Amino acid sequence: LKLLTLARDLQRRRGRERQRLFVAEGVRTVEELLRSTLSVQGALVSPQLAGTARGSKLLELLRNRSIPIEEISAAELESAADTDTPQGVLVMAEVPRRSLEDLPESSPARLVILDGVQDPGNVGAVLRTAAALGAVATIALPGTVDLWNTKVVRSAMGAHFHHPSLTCTWDEASAFLSARAIGLWGADSAGTPLDSVAGDGKPVPERLALVLGNEGSGLSATARERADRLVALPIASTVDSLNVAVAAGIFLYQLRR
Amino acid sequence: LKLLTLARDLQRRRGRERQRLFVAEGVRTVEELLRSTLSVQGALVSPQLAGTARGSKLLELLRNRSIPIEEISAAELESAADTDTPQGVLVMAEVPRRSLEDLPESSPARLVILDGVQDPGNVGAVLRTAAALGAVATIALPGTVDLWNTKVVRSAMGAHFHHPSLTCTWDEASAFLSARAIGLWGADSAGTPLDSVAGDGKPVPERLALVLGNEGSGLSATARERADRLVALPIASTVDSLNVAVAAGIFLYQLRR
Repeated sequence: LKLLTLARDLQRRRGRERQRLFVAEGVRTVEELLRSTLSVQGALVSPQLAGTARGSKLLELLRNRSIPIEEISAAELESAADTDTPQGVLVMAEVPRRSLEDLPESSPARLVILDGVQDPGNVGAVLRTAAALGAVATIALPGTVDLWNTKVVRSAMGAHFHHPSLTCTWDEASAFLSARAIGLWGADSAGTPLDSVAGDGKPVPERLALVLGNEGSGLSATARERADRLVALPIASTVDSLNVAVAAGIFLYQLRR
Repeated sequence: LKLLTLARDLQRRRGRERQRLFVAEGVRTVEELLRSTLSVQGALVSPQLAGTARGSKLLELLRNRSIPIEEISAAELESAADTDTPQGVLVMAEVPRRSLEDLPESSPARLVILDGVQDPGNVGAVLRTAAALGAVATIALPGTVDLWNTKVVRSAMGAHFHHPSLTCTWDEASAFLSARAIGLWGADSAGTPLDSVAGDGKPVPERLALVLGNEGSGLSATARERADRLVALPIASTVDSLNVAVAAGIFLYQLRR
């Protein structure tokens, strides 16, 4: 299979799932990827890449690693890329096989669960935030955009490459939380204000997962039902809601151990 | 001037500054705008708008307010819009004349200052966050993307319409901060960790502005020089930085009064 054809196939979720590969674009992201333990399977490169010192260095690195490289035109590269300006480079790498069972049994621990979060930029920003603030993992439930969507990978700025992010069903997530004695809190505007949580006598669990819902409709009925408690960040009445990544950041920072 | 020609002119910063008008797209944003005190000067509407109950209601509202409406094709609307799917409606409204002097002299007070933040989505998310978390104003310094850029307006989800946001020079900002006795902290990864700030004997000022820098290069030399102190959010070593809106959210929440 030509690498260009493969890259185009990976633009769709079905293609990514069948090939167990994802796409990373742009100099900075590809550099990050090459620093990780993930396995890079091939690269598409246009003449633009060698036009900068940093790009030339990256090209050399790809060659030194014996990664298969296909040299194509800028227009061909764009046809396989998600951005208009992929900076002359796009690589394909293996989606790591991560399972809930493999997650470290650390304590204290914080996890993020995404319940129908649909905007790729938001999901990427949550992953970046969760990685930065030391969450153990980010778990995507059905209805959430594919974590390996190219837009998500781009907006996570490399978080995928070291922060455990994985997809499972509600039942798998619930069984895991219960087996590991991890509490589940839901972010919900009708919940207990986060400031009051400390004062009500119920301690914050050592191990805690925070579930965040859809940008428009919030937590699903299932999430409300399964959460041990619902917590809110009080906001001005003139504003509908916080951005989901901003909310994740505030919760993770406030609940840090 | 035809409204369509005017809307196209407003796609550029120079056009917006000359006309003192900005563009808001999409049903939800236009609804928000009509609930605000800002003055709407005209609307472009394609047949799509009347296709939903909510859209029809909005069209009726525009007519009841005697706002000049130009009915155009979907393709024409797209040619003036920033999104591919402006949902059949785009309006032009006056940029409010806001000045530093007009800001309320409240105490305690929190303000956000943007120093060369360039991504429109990020700036919009900061405005939304600042409005939600009760900041008194958001001030954009030179090098920051135009606050009335259509992408910024869209991503702020209506925050512009009630949250004071304005642009000024460093010297104007410094004179204002000093006249109002507002402290200035800079967000900088080399600063004092926010957790340690409370313990070092210097109290958090009652009136405080937080300056956030460029996504890639951080705070400018001017910002570092003028800030009373630099503060950091400790993050994992595997991650370069937090998204600027996420950082703004954590700082504003943590430093709230």
